[in-house]
Amino acid sequence: MTERLSSEQLAARRDAAGALGSALRDLVDAAVRTEVPLAELQDVTASVQQLAARLRVDMRGLQEPAPLDDPGTGDRWFSPVYGPGNPLAPRLAATDTPDGRATGRVTLGKPYEGPPGVVHGGVVATLFDHMLARAVRAAGRGGMTAELTVTYRRPVRLGVPLLLTAKMNDADGRRTTARARIVAEDDPGTTLAEAEGLFVSLRP
Amino acid sequence: MTERLSSEQLAARRDAAGALGSALRDLVDAAVRTEVPLAELQDVTASVQQLAARLRVDMRGLQEPAPLDDPGTGDRWFSPVYGPGNPLAPRLAATDTPDGRATGRVTLGKPYEGPPGVVHGGVVATLFDHMLARAVRAAGRGGMTAELTVTYRRPVRLGVPLLLTAKMNDADGRRTTARARIVAEDDPGTTLAEAEGLFVSLRP
Repeated sequence: MTERLSSEQLAARRDAAGALGSALRDLVDAAVRTEVPLAELQDVTASVQQLAARLRVDMRGLQEPAPLDDPGTGDRWFSPVYGPGNPLAPRLAATDTPDGRATGRVTLGKPYEGPPGVVHGGVVATLFDHMLARAVRAAGRGGMTAELTVTYRRPVRLGVPLLLTAKMNDADGRRTTARARIVAEDDPGTTLAEAEGLFVSLRP
Repeated sequence: MTERLSSEQLAARRDAAGALGSALRDLVDAAVRTEVPLAELQDVTASVQQLAARLRVDMRGLQEPAPLDDPGTGDRWFSPVYGPGNPLAPRLAATDTPDGRATGRVTLGKPYEGPPGVVHGGVVATLFDHMLARAVRAAGRGGMTAELTVTYRRPVRLGVPLLLTAKMNDADGRRTTARARIVAEDDPGTTLAEAEGLFVSLRP
């Protein structure tokens, strides 16, 4: 797809990519939980292979950016943390304000399980990395993650609505720090895990 | 599936779950890179929804363990980091030794992208969390991650074979620390990122 998309085409394509992401999210969830008979599992696998072949007919290369991304807002349609079009991303709904605060809501299912019934620590770290970066970017600061520290206090449970809050902390030259925490929405006083991030930009 | 599986049935089912995981990994990769026409995208989406409905006919609940897991080795068939049956997990091949060392090899594709062409920092943290825990467990120590610190030194690139090494550090009562690093296989002298983890077990 080398020609430029009109804004209507872009909107339609974003919708379609989001719908495919959503359908695949459901399929991934079903795949890690299914107990259907072996023959059915094998039959579904063959169909999945056929669908992959259909999508592979025209694919972007590993270094090519997605035409659906919005360079203005920095929103990435295929982000592995919040991208509607990426089946790996949970349904994270995040917002931010120019004072360097970000809020995210998410409920995590079986594909994100670490210890039994509990969200994998790496998934918690991934959510934090994104929320911290988002708070920093919302304040007009930039940079890549240079250091991320996560402190796990209590199990973060599957199937429970979670609330993440992040806030920019210190800004000094090219360096910006931010802090974040995660709680269950129905128990906002109990911190389940918290994080601190250091972001360093190439220019001040 | 309430009846116990024979060892042959278990092996066949593990194979089938791994094959579905593998096929879905390919489909996820194709979904985040495809540029096929809109109508084709929508048609594939409808097929994905039908496949999910077929797998949902019989599903484990959110708290139910997978019958395919091996309680002896602790291997989890649907782990989001290395589980063959979990499409979210990259193809991570990890080994460990009883002296508390673990080694992992992985190449990450487009679904794991953060900055353009670069692996998302959260994905790097997730790989570290697993490798650190694996080193600790290999030494006969246990526990949940209490703290994880990741230092990002250089971009970790998509499409490049990566090598992760982890080593148990201090063991003191219920507390165990471990360190890990990640390099490109063809440039083992350059640390791309490193991590330290603290694990705390319920009993000594």
